[in-house]
Amino acid sequence: MENSIANKVREQMAVIERGVTELIPREELIKKLEKSLNTGRPLIVKLGLDPTAPDIHLGHTVVLNKLRQFQELGHEVHLIIGDYTGRIGDPSGKSETRKQLTQEEIEYNAQTYKEQIFKVLDEERTIIHFNSEWLAPMNLADILNLTAKYTVARMLERDDFEKRYKNGLPIGVHEFLYPLMQGYDSVALNADIELGGTDQKFNLLVGRQLMREYGQEPQIALMMPILEGTDGVQKMSKSLGNYIGVNEVPNEMFGKTMSISDELICRYFELLTGISNEELKSINDAMASGRLNPRDAKIRLAEELIGRFHSPEAANQAKERFISVFSKNQIPDDIPELVHEEVEVYLPRFLPEQGLAESGADARRSLKAGAVKVNGQKYGEENLTLQKGMVIQAGKRKFIKIV
Amino acid sequence: MENSIANKVREQMAVIERGVTELIPREELIKKLEKSLNTGRPLIVKLGLDPTAPDIHLGHTVVLNKLRQFQELGHEVHLIIGDYTGRIGDPSGKSETRKQLTQEEIEYNAQTYKEQIFKVLDEERTIIHFNSEWLAPMNLADILNLTAKYTVARMLERDDFEKRYKNGLPIGVHEFLYPLMQGYDSVALNADIELGGTDQKFNLLVGRQLMREYGQEPQIALMMPILEGTDGVQKMSKSLGNYIGVNEVPNEMFGKTMSISDELICRYFELLTGISNEELKSINDAMASGRLNPRDAKIRLAEELIGRFHSPEAANQAKERFISVFSKNQIPDDIPELVHEEVEVYLPRFLPEQGLAESGADARRSLKAGAVKVNGQKYGEENLTLQKGMVIQAGKRKFIKIV
Repeated sequence: MENSIANKVREQMAVIERGVTELIPREELIKKLEKSLNTGRPLIVKLGLDPTAPDIHLGHTVVLNKLRQFQELGHEVHLIIGDYTGRIGDPSGKSETRKQLTQEEIEYNAQTYKEQIFKVLDEERTIIHFNSEWLAPMNLADILNLTAKYTVARMLERDDFEKRYKNGLPIGVHEFLYPLMQGYDSVALNADIELGGTDQKFNLLVGRQLMREYGQEPQIALMMPILEGTDGVQKMSKSLGNYIGVNEVPNEMFGKTMSISDELICRYFELLTGISNEELKSINDAMASGRLNPRDAKIRLAEELIGRFHSPEAANQAKERFISVFSKNQIPDDIPELVHEEVEVYLPRFLPEQGLAESGADARRSLKAGAVKVNGQKYGEENLTLQKGMVIQAGKRKFIKIV
Repeated sequence: MENSIANKVREQMAVIERGVTELIPREELIKKLEKSLNTGRPLIVKLGLDPTAPDIHLGHTVVLNKLRQFQELGHEVHLIIGDYTGRIGDPSGKSETRKQLTQEEIEYNAQTYKEQIFKVLDEERTIIHFNSEWLAPMNLADILNLTAKYTVARMLERDDFEKRYKNGLPIGVHEFLYPLMQGYDSVALNADIELGGTDQKFNLLVGRQLMREYGQEPQIALMMPILEGTDGVQKMSKSLGNYIGVNEVPNEMFGKTMSISDELICRYFELLTGISNEELKSINDAMASGRLNPRDAKIRLAEELIGRFHSPEAANQAKERFISVFSKNQIPDDIPELVHEEVEVYLPRFLPEQGLAESGADARRSLKAGAVKVNGQKYGEENLTLQKGMVIQAGKRKFIKIV
């Protein structure tokens, strides 16, 4: 019996530790898992969500994927939506990421979050909290009590605070309260584990410390890596343009996945998919030995991702289309058609109007770079006389046919 | 008319600036006085009181004396009793000066304060507030809003914070909230001026800054010096034993005043009495030219102090007694009598028991220093056989007669 629990703990740890950057402290997690298996009480696994930016990309799903694994091991996922801070915003008005939100905006964002998050998480095993539930009733005495549990010096050890303090950039006193509020969320929840990116390490440890101060068993801090974007260099970010959004259409998602560098393939499998550790190892080995072409591994990855964020059918269609268009370097069959008179158009305006470029500047760049083709031939002029049956292509994946 | 207001402002400034260490900023105070005289609206003059230590000595009355002068100029004095912080205490449990008080203790202390304070202040022109009135209803949003108005770097400029931070001594995050709460008291009151000792400079300026942030006309910070104790060297303090308590009996107060060093005479007149600037100057000049014996100036000072804290009659009696005892170097007529058997006593226990020494150690020191006399003769032994009619004296002013 003892032995069987030890085995189960080992099995759970193998899943939990996959892709993890840091686990503080590992031994305590093992004890918590033992206790959970002995008592049948699932662990409370916490993730805090900022209600200001509900539009998520694959980078955000790294922690969600880990939460999903906890759910599959039978544990309980608690999402904390930081509505209280969202409703206040940043009182100094200096932080863009803490702009004041209305009740409607928060509810709308929470709803949008849910729709995206439940593509990864199991809705049945997910409990959603709004932290205003315990933060709104706090009075000054409660807050003095909370803030007495942490020192200024330790707060100034947080990377960004330390840098700003050293460089003479202002830190509002209220900014010291935010990590304590996040930490207090863990106390309110009596969390067993909190997940976050490596950039959240400080805040996760504040929660750990506060729980101890409030006489609770401190939470485990589990940190996941920050995912590199499709360029393989910088972190995935909307503003850097190297992201894959969870709401992107299957063909777009497929194309972007196929564009990632080979080094990222296993990492994406590890951090973003639900394939087993065994399968992960076999893909890795097959690529290393040359038995598996990276291109085929990427097709498999793209199928996994689209299967999760859309459906297995959508994944299959996108794969078929991709093979037809790119592998055979053909113009695909199902390109959008545009009914248009046969006139001369100004491409820096026409391309963005038709969704073939982001903007006039983008269109001009594509024209200069030779990324615009007309009937399969590179085209560099800014003016073009349209004709019935003409196929215009921008980049690798955008087509339009004049009819 | 204009001219007459300017004259009145000048007159008020002459009274207000007496003994003041720093006034930030002087020009704004002049404008406030002009406005007050023009509109007939008195200025709101604030003093914050800590409800933990209600037993006050002359050092504490320096600011009270200044408040009294404001009252005599027609302004309104507002005392803020920090009951909210008193009731919370220091949540970290590390500060002795912020131990948690019950409602009864706070009320008792407030009452004791009032009794002592109204020996200096005019009760009719004094308004007492408890800061729980505006601090208790604050919620987390209000507090984030308050704390957003001040930076960590400026907070760390406060002397004691700076030292502790540099020396690696802990500062609780909650300690950053106290100056902001004190500052918020000024906002709640819409204060025109806040008084304090020079050690309060930082906190008074926080109030000034916060009022500006809350869209109010910022208060003037008026700082009074820290009074030297009777030794003329260190600041007056109960623990240093160089204090004169406002509740001390007239004879004790008289004797202690006579013991101060000559350099302190004018300073005590300036900071502790209500004599006019003209009279102050004439005493100063008379002593400087040798026309006034410092001993007589001290008798005058003692009369002023006892007149204020007891009554003019008590002042007169104490003066008569002092002249009879010390000037003539006699044993006074009215010394306490002790009915006691004629046995041998151990003076390090006997003297403190009879109130002739603070403790056994104190008694031993006095014996060694030759400060104990028996029937007018120095006595240095630790054992003494009591006899009827024996007069035992410790120091200059403590006597007992065995009967």
